[in-house]
Formats: sequence, C-alpha cells, structure tokens
Amino acid sequence: MKAADPATIETPVGYVELDRARANATRVAAYARSHGLRWRPHVKTHKSLEVARIQLEAGAQGLTVATLREAEVMASLCDDVMLAYPPVGWTKLERLLSLPESVDIKVALDGVEVLTSLASAAVERGRTVGVLVELDVGLGRVGVQTADDVVRLAELAAGTEGVAFRGVLFYPGHIRMPRGEQTGHMRAVATRLHAALGALTAAGLHPEIVSGGSTPTLWNSHLVEGLTEIRSGSCIYFDREALHVGVADWADVAYTVLASVVSTAVPGRAVVDAGSKALAKESRGGDGFGILLDHPEVLVRSLSEEHGVLDLGATEWRPKIGERVRIVPNHVCASVNLQDGLLARDGDVHRLITLEARGRGPWIA
Amino acid sequence: MKAADPATIETPVGYVELDRARANATRVAAYARSHGLRWRPHVKTHKSLEVARIQLEAGAQGLTVATLREAEVMASLCDDVMLAYPPVGWTKLERLLSLPESVDIKVALDGVEVLTSLASAAVERGRTVGVLVELDVGLGRVGVQTADDVVRLAELAAGTEGVAFRGVLFYPGHIRMPRGEQTGHMRAVATRLHAALGALTAAGLHPEIVSGGSTPTLWNSHLVEGLTEIRSGSCIYFDREALHVGVADWADVAYTVLASVVSTAVPGRAVVDAGSKALAKESRGGDGFGILLDHPEVLVRSLSEEHGVLDLGATEWRPKIGERVRIVPNHVCASVNLQDGLLARDGDVHRLITLEARGRGPWIA
Repeated sequence: MKAADPATIETPVGYVELDRARANATRVAAYARSHGLRWRPHVKTHKSLEVARIQLEAGAQGLTVATLREAEVMASLCDDVMLAYPPVGWTKLERLLSLPESVDIKVALDGVEVLTSLASAAVERGRTVGVLVELDVGLGRVGVQTADDVVRLAELAAGTEGVAFRGVLFYPGHIRMPRGEQTGHMRAVATRLHAALGALTAAGLHPEIVSGGSTPTLWNSHLVEGLTEIRSGSCIYFDREALHVGVADWADVAYTVLASVVSTAVPGRAVVDAGSKALAKESRGGDGFGILLDHPEVLVRSLSEEHGVLDLGATEWRPKIGERVRIVPNHVCASVNLQDGLLARDGDVHRLITLEARGRGPWIA
Repeated sequence: MKAADPATIETPVGYVELDRARANATRVAAYARSHGLRWRPHVKTHKSLEVARIQLEAGAQGLTVATLREAEVMASLCDDVMLAYPPVGWTKLERLLSLPESVDIKVALDGVEVLTSLASAAVERGRTVGVLVELDVGLGRVGVQTADDVVRLAELAAGTEGVAFRGVLFYPGHIRMPRGEQTGHMRAVATRLHAALGALTAAGLHPEIVSGGSTPTLWNSHLVEGLTEIRSGSCIYFDREALHVGVADWADVAYTVLASVVSTAVPGRAVVDAGSKALAKESRGGDGFGILLDHPEVLVRSLSEEHGVLDLGATEWRPKIGERVRIVPNHVCASVNLQDGLLARDGDVHRLITLEARGRGPWIA
C-alpha cells in the first residue's frame, strides 16, 4: 500500500475525502427532500460509478449526464437517466438508443431539428424517448427564448412518434454571485419559468418534470416555484468557486489536487508539479487558478502545463522541495476530467477511484 | 471506414492534417540545420509515437519530455531523451532510472536537493544521469537566478557521483509578443546566457548542450549566441497563439478540433459540442478560446464543459444543426491532452492516431 499513501503516491493526482463527499451528498439530498424536490445530480463532476452510488444511496433519484459515455456507464447503475445535452449526429443517437431498454431515457433539447432526428431514430429502434424542452433563463448559451417557443416545441414533442413530452429544463448558470445576493436573480428565473409553465398549462400540456439548479444556486433552489428537481453536481466535491459563492465551507471541500513542490529557485515563489494538465486553467478574474487547502493565504498564481506557480507573497510558509500540498482548484469538474484516476481516503484507508465515464469512446465504430 | 470519416465521426475530436505536420517538421528541422542547431522537440504537444517518428524522420535529434510517462513511451523510439522537468519523489526517480540502459537520459534542474536525490538514486542503480542546469532568463517560473548559481550547481553536478554535468537549459516563455518585436527581448536572453556561459568557462566547465527555444521565438532562435539546440514542440501543429505571434500562417495549422453545431436557439450565437473538455479553457486576454478555421471571423466566445459558444456577430454565416466546424484552439498542447485519440488525414486516407504518452500512469505501484 506504499504507493496509495498520500505521502508517497506519485503526484500530481486528484485526491478525494470520501467521508466529506458522503456528507455533502447527504446534506444536498436532505435539502431537496425538505423542499419536496428530487435530486438528479450531474455526473460530469465525478465521472465515477462509485461516487454516483454514493449519491444514489444518499437519496438522489436519477442521474444527469452530458455525454454518451457518461450515459452508457451510468445506465449500468441507474434506470433514470437524463441527457442534459442535445444528441446531434448519428453515432450519438445510435449510442443513446442502444442504452438498455430498462433505462427511462430523457433528453433536453431546444430545437426542432434535434427533436425530429431524435424521433426518427427512436422510431427506427421501436423506442420512445422522453423530451424536456430547455428554456434559456438568462445564461444565453442554449435554450429556447420565449414561453411561446417552449409551447411550440412541447407540442411538437407531444405530437411526434418516438418522443414524449416530459417537461422543462433550465440551467441558471449566469447566477454566480455570492449566495446572499442571489434572491433577485432567482426571482427573475422564477418569473421566466412561471410564464413558460403557464403557457404550457394553457395549451393543455403538463410537464411532469421541471428540472433546474446549479451548484452556485443550490441552497436557493426552493425560491423557484414549480421546480420538481435539481441537478447540482459539483456539490459532491465543491471547489474554489463554491467557496467564493459561499455555497460551501472549507470543511466541505472533498476534492483537492495533491502536488509536490519541485522548485524554489525563484524568490517569492514555489513551483508545484500540478499545472494546467492537472488543475485546469479555469480563470476566475485574475485571482489565480487554485488555493492551498492547508495555506489558504497561498494562491496558484499562474499555470504552465506541468507547473503551478505558488505566490508566497502573503505567507511566512517556505516550502521545501518534495513537500506535498493540497490544492483546491477553481473548477473541480475540469480538474477531475484531467486525472487518470483518483486517490481516495475512506475513513482510515486510502484506495483508488476509477473514472469509468471519462473520455468519449468508443468513438470509432 | 464510415466512422473514421470527418463528415460522420463522432464529435468533438482532435483532427490532424498529417501532410501539414510533416511540412512543419521539415521546415523547423531545416531552420535548425541552417543555423547549426539541433532540434529536440518537446513531445508534450502531441504525446504520440507516430508524430515523434515524423519529427525524428524530418531531422530532429533527440526528444524532450516533461513527464515520466512521456519519457517511458518515447524511450522506445529514441535513445536521446531530455526530461525538462525536475524529477521529485521516489516514483519519478524510480521510473526515470528504469528507462532502458541504452537511453542517454538528461535532466534539467535548478536546485541542490533535486540534484542530490537524483544522484543518490542513480548511484543505487549504478547509472549516471546527465544534468543540465536550468537558468531563468525572464519567465520567473523555474531556473537559477544568476551566473554564479549556474556555476555552483554545475560544479556540484560535475563533482557528484551518479550525475554528470552536460550543459545549460533555459525557456524563454515570457517572449510572446509578435515575432517582429522580439529582437530586443532575445538579445536580453542572449546577454543573460552569455554571462552564465562565460562564468562556466572561467570555472573550467564546458557545457556540451545549451538548450533553449520555444515556439513563439522559434524563428528567432539564432539570435541567441551559444545555443546548441532548440526544443520547440507545438510547431508540429501550431495553434491560435502561433498565428497571433506570427510564427505560423493559417496554411501551417495542422490541428483543429472537429465539432458539430448542436444549438442555434440563442440569437447571434451558435453552440458547438466542443467545450472546455475538448478545446481547453486557455484564455488569451478576453478574445475567446478558439477561432474557426473555415470562418476566421468567428470566435469561440465562451466555453462550458461541453459547450463552445460561437459569436456570429461578425459573420453572415448561419450554421445549421449538425454542421461540422474545425476550431483552432488557443493552445494546442492543452487540447490534444483532452482527446482520447485523434482523427488524422494522411493524404487521401483518414485514420486514427493514438496518444500513448497521455496520462501519467502507471502511477500506482
């Protein structure tokens, strides 16, 4: 077990505290339950069957995925899977429709072309795929723009063989300000959603699922009336963004990148072996790419591919070559995606977590 | 072969034009030769045996690596390998010293601790590892700060069993301005290097290798007197940064990310399925994360994990759902590292390139 010890394992490597992850899952599930919401966590954060199992055991009801690889892997664990991503292209449709018959597949989409190609492919396979109409509530990334557009696409889904209208989905990804300042923004989302839901009712359509939620808005999800489920995913581990927003405390952070100090040659700095290929170069307005868990006064000021440059300007701490540090990345999902696997602490034992849903393959037929 | 066709292969996927890559390799090798320099390309860009073979066949003499995985994979192809990274920690030393005896290993480092632990491990294995002293020439990342420090570390290397002093290494990573404005900066590098080389000579030490070079400074490498080799790696593919610096033309760009349009619901935008998990979120001062090869007026304005948002504000082009685009990423090395494998066009044939040197494993003994 020498190599699976955080003191000697090769760095850089993603490091998970499973007890914290379990506590996070329990807390989110309890919040959802207390507000009559279901929790359908997005697995893009962890890409791991073991961690998905933790979420389901804590009370998650269903899983959210973005890629077909994630869908295929998670279908082995859970029969309620939502692809919160438009499946465009024949291989993606083929893979989607090859998921086990036992899986209740739901797909979020925002356009007629995606809906009709999905429906045709489903008819060919003798399946029916659930459709959620995605509504843009302010991010301006994907999603139909008006309540009328929601109704139009929902009516098309309801009237087209191979698909079934199941509900509405939105992602409030534009709401990233501190938790206490979110109320007005959440009310604006609620207003927009209310209009769409009202128009659907007027058209005689009844969304069984109204799916929303992000990790920054997690604890304010109940402010959006009509919601039936939240999809928050990165709440399993949290990250520096979550700390900034105030949706998590330091003691909740369950994922760090374990790194070793490899150079102290430049005064005022120390270099670790976690660079952009371990932490991900996710900028947060010029204030660095990560922060040390055990020295929160120390930022990862800049990143090269294999170098993370620690700014020692605000600390008395002077690390030695070979010293190990734990870095909280700005964006946990992007960092996990760069790992071959994770080292996990489970009580007193250290072991590995595999990332079965990482990558995209088999991408060549 | 249907799936290995760029018109139908599942997206997103990295896409290489091998004829262009070969032409780039030939041009760099010719430049180096014409100035009496050796070319030791950094394989971190491509992580592929096939592409390393192209570089060696074009005239590269030796390879540069940053990770032990890269070293292990490339050692099967080439017996002249430089680890341009301090090997810190027992697994890295173990892996380094387990490279075949036939491989002439060289390591760049900047500190006494790294040198002495490397030397001890080498003595234990009965090997001698070449050492290059890394000099900081302005980036402020790693590297000793003064000519005196170069001499001190070189003398230690020369006098310590298990290691041998082989030369000096530097990385002018701070020089990223347009090619025509680089001359003064290159002269400053030359002055700093000259002082170090002079001090070494005065101390009776003779660096056999003086290793420098980056892709932005590629065609100005000859301005640095005393240089014996360049390590430019991303010149095999080039990227948006290279276009910006002017070190490559559009016709030289050999790597793009092939993506599909998945949403056109938001006016003025189109969304493709290449997000930060395919392109890498490498910021270039707020001007987006990539540019379309076939529509250079279109930028990838923002990235989520699986969404790339194209700004259609400066184009008449209105893409359809399912339409394929080729995106030149800001930083090719970071994008290649996110791929499972690459689709390559080789003359009239499309096939796959495997990325043997990607990842870090076996990281658990």
